[in-house]
Amino acid sequence: MAIVGCGAVGSLFAANLAQLDEVEVWAFDLDREHVAAINEQGLRLSGAGELVGEVRATTDAAELPPSDFGIVATKCMHTAAAIEATAPAFADGAVCSVQNGVGNEEVLAEYAERVIRGTTFPAGRVLGPGHVQWDVKGDTTIGPFEPSPAPMAEVERLAAVCTRGGMPTQAVADARGPQWRKLIFNAATNPIGALTGLTHGRVCDDPGLRRLVSQLVDEGRAVAAAQGIELDADPEELIDHAARPDVAYDHKASMLQDAEAHRQTEVDYLNGGISRVGREQGIPTPLNDAITALIKGLEASWAQT
Amino acid sequence: MAIVGCGAVGSLFAANLAQLDEVEVWAFDLDREHVAAINEQGLRLSGAGELVGEVRATTDAAELPPSDFGIVATKCMHTAAAIEATAPAFADGAVCSVQNGVGNEEVLAEYAERVIRGTTFPAGRVLGPGHVQWDVKGDTTIGPFEPSPAPMAEVERLAAVCTRGGMPTQAVADARGPQWRKLIFNAATNPIGALTGLTHGRVCDDPGLRRLVSQLVDEGRAVAAAQGIELDADPEELIDHAARPDVAYDHKASMLQDAEAHRQTEVDYLNGGISRVGREQGIPTPLNDAITALIKGLEASWAQT
Repeated sequence: MAIVGCGAVGSLFAANLAQLDEVEVWAFDLDREHVAAINEQGLRLSGAGELVGEVRATTDAAELPPSDFGIVATKCMHTAAAIEATAPAFADGAVCSVQNGVGNEEVLAEYAERVIRGTTFPAGRVLGPGHVQWDVKGDTTIGPFEPSPAPMAEVERLAAVCTRGGMPTQAVADARGPQWRKLIFNAATNPIGALTGLTHGRVCDDPGLRRLVSQLVDEGRAVAAAQGIELDADPEELIDHAARPDVAYDHKASMLQDAEAHRQTEVDYLNGGISRVGREQGIPTPLNDAITALIKGLEASWAQT
Repeated sequence: MAIVGCGAVGSLFAANLAQLDEVEVWAFDLDREHVAAINEQGLRLSGAGELVGEVRATTDAAELPPSDFGIVATKCMHTAAAIEATAPAFADGAVCSVQNGVGNEEVLAEYAERVIRGTTFPAGRVLGPGHVQWDVKGDTTIGPFEPSPAPMAEVERLAAVCTRGGMPTQAVADARGPQWRKLIFNAATNPIGALTGLTHGRVCDDPGLRRLVSQLVDEGRAVAAAQGIELDADPEELIDHAARPDVAYDHKASMLQDAEAHRQTEVDYLNGGISRVGREQGIPTPLNDAITALIKGLEASWAQT
């Protein structure tokens, strides 16, 4: 088992799966300090769960042993480089995306034969080398990627391992519903946090912003429906959930974390992805277009002298 | 002549008009340091024009002598308090708004009998006590406020004085066209600068943002048309102008200045004003609604612990 991209979400998988005796967990990441700390002291999670995972980490993809499964958890814009480097390790295995946004599986399929579409809800943030804050627990759903599917038996095996390791995961025949539900939720909330500086809970709780969030949800819903995707549940439930004071109220969305660190965001794969598919399907998405432009403008300002 | 609110725009009027021998210029402002510096060293402008105006400044409205004209240049949210305090000085005179946004004249008319509707394009920023940077020169247009009008002869007299003082001003019978043109321009560009951190020129120059800016303009245009207001020119010309590298390219919109200083913005009177009138007129304004919600969210984040 190899985790490709050991940021917050990748670390949640790596550290949890490393609790299983029968699984050897490798992590591929380009952050030398993070990799060195993991190899020296293990990968530590704090917050929603406290544990240390014995993980073999490397910045050199050639060191990865052949693996049955790769779990790809990089930011969307790094998917191609990451899978190009690590694909040889998965020549006889399957590769599963647990990333945000749309279009990641398409990229994985350019380098890997058997691909699994996945969506994961747990969230956190890197506190420092080898140490990740686990902000929110949650489920993962995986299914065969339609054009280059992994066999369903393999999908089910991966789900069972993740679940045993403490990351509850469900194998389903069509994982597009949960993926679009999360995409729509992310696109409706994440950039609002990045533009306003508000935490997840406050974005979902403020009446004016909640109206905007719901309008963004409606655009995403229309684009999903045009593709024949049936959402497994209403994205509004996730927003109601985020607005509850006890859950993820004070969680800073990953895009707000990116904005505060002046790091490129995933907006092209979230709102930009909804807009792109909307254009293909002939569904107008003016608010997602606007949010994409605002976030790209914000990114551009970081280079402004 | 009294200038009510001696921030950037108020200072441009005060210092320029003070160049005229026949005009005694008073300035009312609540910033004690600014007022003290003006009284000690005069009011200094740098940038597009270099000059020092001999201005009598006070924080005490009761000190203002009876004046033929008041020029109100406070932020919109301070209009009521400012005119309530200063109205006695204008008992026999007329009061003219040169503020941003919609609804200021209505507030002035609650306290003053003769009101002038005005719109001004010059812009700048306060550099320190008694010292204002003049970023952009521009014209001013004034006209009688329909429900509580100042006589046209008085409007013309004020325009002539301002023009002689170096602030080119035109008197017109219906000043709503220029006012809505500037309102639409401001609402389409100012908050985009505040949300992204980009200067005026870059907001208007970036293709993705420019598309959003133009959609915001279209909403504003529809709301103006529904009221029977004829814009005196296309707001897009102002945007093209702002995108030119030689003009206001590096000017930070006042709302961006507010955002950087964590000061309440005028969004309720810009995009919020367009949305409010849109609701009254039955014209949908989803993008102005969205921008209002985002700016209010940004303001809320400054109080976030």
